[in-house]
Amino acid sequence: MPVSDQSLANAIRALAMDAVQAANSGHPGMPMGMADVATVLWGEYLKFDAEQPHWADRDRFVLSAGHGSMLLYALLYLTGHRHPTIDDIRNFRKLSSPCAGHPENFLLDGVEATTGPLGQGLAMAVGMAIAERHLNAVFDDDLVDHRTWVIAGDGCLMEGINHEAIGLAGHLQLGRIIVLWDSNKITIDGSTDLSTSEDIPARYRATGWHTVACDGHDPVDIRRAIDEAIADPRPSLVECRTIIGYGAPTKQGTSATHGAPLGDDEIAGTRKALGWDHPPFDIPADIKARWEEFGKRGAEPRAAWDARLADHGERAEFERRMAGRLKDGADLSGYIDGLIADPKTVATRKASEMALGAINDLLPETIGGSADLTGSNNTKTSATKPLTKDDYSGRYIYYGIREFGMAAAMNGMALHGGVIPYAGTFLVFADYCRAAIRLSALQRQRVVYVMTHDSIGLGEDGPTHQPIEHLQSLRAMPNLLVMRPADTVETAECWALALAQDDRPSLMALSRQNLPQLRLEKADNRCAKGAYRLKSAKNERRIILLATGSELHVAVEIAEKLEAAGYGTDVVSMPCTELFDEQPASYREDILPDVSNRDVLRVSIEAGTTFGWERYTGLHGLRFGIDRFGASAPAPDLYDAFGLTADKIAPKILDHLN
Amino acid sequence: MPVSDQSLANAIRALAMDAVQAANSGHPGMPMGMADVATVLWGEYLKFDAEQPHWADRDRFVLSAGHGSMLLYALLYLTGHRHPTIDDIRNFRKLSSPCAGHPENFLLDGVEATTGPLGQGLAMAVGMAIAERHLNAVFDDDLVDHRTWVIAGDGCLMEGINHEAIGLAGHLQLGRIIVLWDSNKITIDGSTDLSTSEDIPARYRATGWHTVACDGHDPVDIRRAIDEAIADPRPSLVECRTIIGYGAPTKQGTSATHGAPLGDDEIAGTRKALGWDHPPFDIPADIKARWEEFGKRGAEPRAAWDARLADHGERAEFERRMAGRLKDGADLSGYIDGLIADPKTVATRKASEMALGAINDLLPETIGGSADLTGSNNTKTSATKPLTKDDYSGRYIYYGIREFGMAAAMNGMALHGGVIPYAGTFLVFADYCRAAIRLSALQRQRVVYVMTHDSIGLGEDGPTHQPIEHLQSLRAMPNLLVMRPADTVETAECWALALAQDDRPSLMALSRQNLPQLRLEKADNRCAKGAYRLKSAKNERRIILLATGSELHVAVEIAEKLEAAGYGTDVVSMPCTELFDEQPASYREDILPDVSNRDVLRVSIEAGTTFGWERYTGLHGLRFGIDRFGASAPAPDLYDAFGLTADKIAPKILDHLN
Repeated sequence: MPVSDQSLANAIRALAMDAVQAANSGHPGMPMGMADVATVLWGEYLKFDAEQPHWADRDRFVLSAGHGSMLLYALLYLTGHRHPTIDDIRNFRKLSSPCAGHPENFLLDGVEATTGPLGQGLAMAVGMAIAERHLNAVFDDDLVDHRTWVIAGDGCLMEGINHEAIGLAGHLQLGRIIVLWDSNKITIDGSTDLSTSEDIPARYRATGWHTVACDGHDPVDIRRAIDEAIADPRPSLVECRTIIGYGAPTKQGTSATHGAPLGDDEIAGTRKALGWDHPPFDIPADIKARWEEFGKRGAEPRAAWDARLADHGERAEFERRMAGRLKDGADLSGYIDGLIADPKTVATRKASEMALGAINDLLPETIGGSADLTGSNNTKTSATKPLTKDDYSGRYIYYGIREFGMAAAMNGMALHGGVIPYAGTFLVFADYCRAAIRLSALQRQRVVYVMTHDSIGLGEDGPTHQPIEHLQSLRAMPNLLVMRPADTVETAECWALALAQDDRPSLMALSRQNLPQLRLEKADNRCAKGAYRLKSAKNERRIILLATGSELHVAVEIAEKLEAAGYGTDVVSMPCTELFDEQPASYREDILPDVSNRDVLRVSIEAGTTFGWERYTGLHGLRFGIDRFGASAPAPDLYDAFGLTADKIAPKILDHLN
Repeated sequence: MPVSDQSLANAIRALAMDAVQAANSGHPGMPMGMADVATVLWGEYLKFDAEQPHWADRDRFVLSAGHGSMLLYALLYLTGHRHPTIDDIRNFRKLSSPCAGHPENFLLDGVEATTGPLGQGLAMAVGMAIAERHLNAVFDDDLVDHRTWVIAGDGCLMEGINHEAIGLAGHLQLGRIIVLWDSNKITIDGSTDLSTSEDIPARYRATGWHTVACDGHDPVDIRRAIDEAIADPRPSLVECRTIIGYGAPTKQGTSATHGAPLGDDEIAGTRKALGWDHPPFDIPADIKARWEEFGKRGAEPRAAWDARLADHGERAEFERRMAGRLKDGADLSGYIDGLIADPKTVATRKASEMALGAINDLLPETIGGSADLTGSNNTKTSATKPLTKDDYSGRYIYYGIREFGMAAAMNGMALHGGVIPYAGTFLVFADYCRAAIRLSALQRQRVVYVMTHDSIGLGEDGPTHQPIEHLQSLRAMPNLLVMRPADTVETAECWALALAQDDRPSLMALSRQNLPQLRLEKADNRCAKGAYRLKSAKNERRIILLATGSELHVAVEIAEKLEAAGYGTDVVSMPCTELFDEQPASYREDILPDVSNRDVLRVSIEAGTTFGWERYTGLHGLRFGIDRFGASAPAPDLYDAFGLTADKIAPKILDHLN
């Protein structure tokens, strides 16, 4: 007897409700509601091979409604992926299991993205779809020809980032992305009527999307809608009308099924209603076998693809890019030699553009962009023509005024693989995309944020545009490198370091204002240790000045004044505190000896909050910075008003010593 | 001879281009493009009285495209506001002038909101419109009956927050809000065609808005469109088709006019093209006089309103609320006495709900809400029925999954006055609304953020939902109080403190998990000093434990173990580091004496990053926290795995001492 669609879907429902019950926490409603849609998608449409979850040309599937993680774990298990095992699912939401509360890309193959923060899954999928079309244009259909599928809930569609993501996808006409919207009219607080009156498909059509609706519990209707979506050249939104917690006799269709176990009685009732009389975590062999056939559907096309790759003229380059390996010899030493030979006084944002000029020529996998600040962020170079709907081979994206959508798209590109995304906005607007920066870090992705106008040094635009707390608040984030180079050479070194990090993002904080080149001698990458001694004390050392970015030259000036007064002064450049913290104790002790501030006074100088600098100065060191909001005025006036000039700081240090 | 509409508008254009030129920075394009629309609006529609910019029933005008600040400064000057003066405008973007690069609400009356971070002005206007309808429903048409007007650019409409803001406004059918969209098809990077293909009016209609278009340079057509917008009961988007930099002979219609001075030659050409032959900053008397008549249009209705207020039965209550004064005797001492008498072990989110029960009964001006986490944030109490399109008198807003829009709306409500907004989400999603939290702080507004699930203590939802860097990254923000209470009594004390701050926002970080009540004796508000000694050492003091929130009871347990081992241990509760930093040195010295850690070891314990805790422990103290992302598991397992239990910490402290 053939296994029915309904039985296949009920296997998902059972695993979801039983795992949530066992964990005594979780979200059964979504997996139960979307089980029928997921069965059709994974059974008949999704291109994947359970044996080879890393197959480069697989379709990407993103569960944007990440709280419904059991849907994905059930699908991976049922289709025969090596993980999760049934024991992993039994241990859902426990430390020992890769089946975390929300799907984590670093715990399980087949989890293409970490999701849960609503709206971002769909927005990352847009980035995946960009990467797919770009690589298709750079290589060809033989190597890159796949779709990106998303399951999203009402929450994903209500978040602001949804507007940015679909606007970008519509503008770029990413027809390979298909969003299956779990339209169940329920959010945590209750009916969607409590908070929204929107005609969602009309909004999607307004941004260039195709829309279609179906009964999310009728496989025939689901197939019709997906076929229509595939046939349409636009990105597609498929409204799947579903009942949340489908099958739960008293709770289905209500928010009670959203985020809590159903309870033993309701689960018993659900088993009865669904005709599912198997014990928890026990999937009948015929049902499991049918699911595993789905997991093998892709084996043949994958083998054919392997054969095409083996014969392909661009094989080595394709494999290099997909593996995320930088090209041999693609380093910036030649470019830096040129800087040493011919020093430049430029803003570090300009220095970044110069470094990118070299990088983009060396590395064809970079894709740049800006959230409508191209000329300010200096992110475009001659090698990067625009990526448009008419030419996906371009390497520069005009993201529009969409900082959050941009950052999430970069995460998606990095997750897809084959490209290295970087893009910019003003540092203060890191706040607009902070939730996506966090996902770059959590997902361990090589994404480079080019954040310019990094202090009051931007001048007249005033406090809304002047970062104060941003540097330190970003340094507090795990697994993110914040780099604040001081001149052309440090900027190039920081870029080299950022590109070399294949498991974490970097954020470059760059000046608007011109800065003198302080690094004038050839050296290995000195920024690699996070902090280094730029100048050693001439007199007996009594002071160590720590500075970053645009304040390093101020520190050099202060040191001259202090030396003139007889106080030996080291100047330590600290472009990346995180890298410094990773150095061996001996190196850290050499740069910042653990002696009393009475013996050697440690002083930090950074045009931002002093919060946290105690880590390097100790409590009895001095910290020069800005612990209030900025103001609107020309930059030199602000540096003077906030006391961040050599003329203001040097006397204070001398006063302190006397 | 009557003054023409064109001359009135040209006065704005001239001030804008000349001020930007004098400052050698700024944005002339928008003021020049929208001058005709602004002239019609301020000349004929906007209800205001230049003599009384604080008139409670004035229309609110928000320049969401804040970079066009010279438009607003010109309007305020021309209509005869006391400030800015013409000298203020001459000194545009200098430290001495209130005419900052972007409009700052704290520098000039008539600047209703600080704008510049795109999208937020419009979203704050939605909050203003909510406050207006609410106060209208609570009082009546005699006291509250005004509109909210917005000028927004393409950037404001492209930002994600626009989706959230208009979704909320459409759902609540805020017909008193009218958005004048400066549709000039230009962004910084160039044509809007570079980055968007959206049919913006169609999107607005999809969310329940009325839309209409006009020629933004034809006063007759502008009046027709505004009249239609006023007549329609829905919120309205008026597409004003304009030419950016209107009048600049070679630059108009291009991004060259957006954010840079036009230059002397172009300005001379503009003068010629506009027929404006007056020197910079010189407005002919007849034109100035006509503008000043506009500034007096509102004098009569304002006087009539004053008379109505004088006779109104609710006058005292209305004035109290608009002044932001808490009711006399509205304190929580009675409620706290009850807690002392009958201690409770509950989560601090529950303790917050209990405190809110008392607060919402005492203070009718509170308006609560949640971004679809009502039952998790515990923000709704019996006194707060929903605020809906059918009943604006409600005091609870189902904001939907719109964290950023919610936060901006709260800013708008607070700026409007007459209400005290509070609302919640999970602490980790502070990242979604961080840019609006910053504007609460910069604008000095009493907004209370109720951020629950404040650590790994939330358990199974895993790293996407577990704050790590959030507490410290928020403490780094100027003018924001971060409060992390430890039990029912501290939660009530923190709420009392938050409500008492009339010039800054507060953010309550609250636990998901239950916590024992540690405060068992009557006392004045001990949280008021930010940190206090909960328990004094019994043996000779060798250790000071500093803890916040859910780790305070852990510290108490550790202290018991250390005392048992003979080490005298203080336990300091530190619910608000910012308030502690504001205490006199003598108090701080009493709590945290500046002695060597060898004599008295300072130890911090907080289930978040240790970054920044050096400020209180010194370099040689100990810091227990979490410097990586979290994990998915039951909370007790996580506390154990991350080493944040008394059993794990006490031995480490003893080891360190030995």
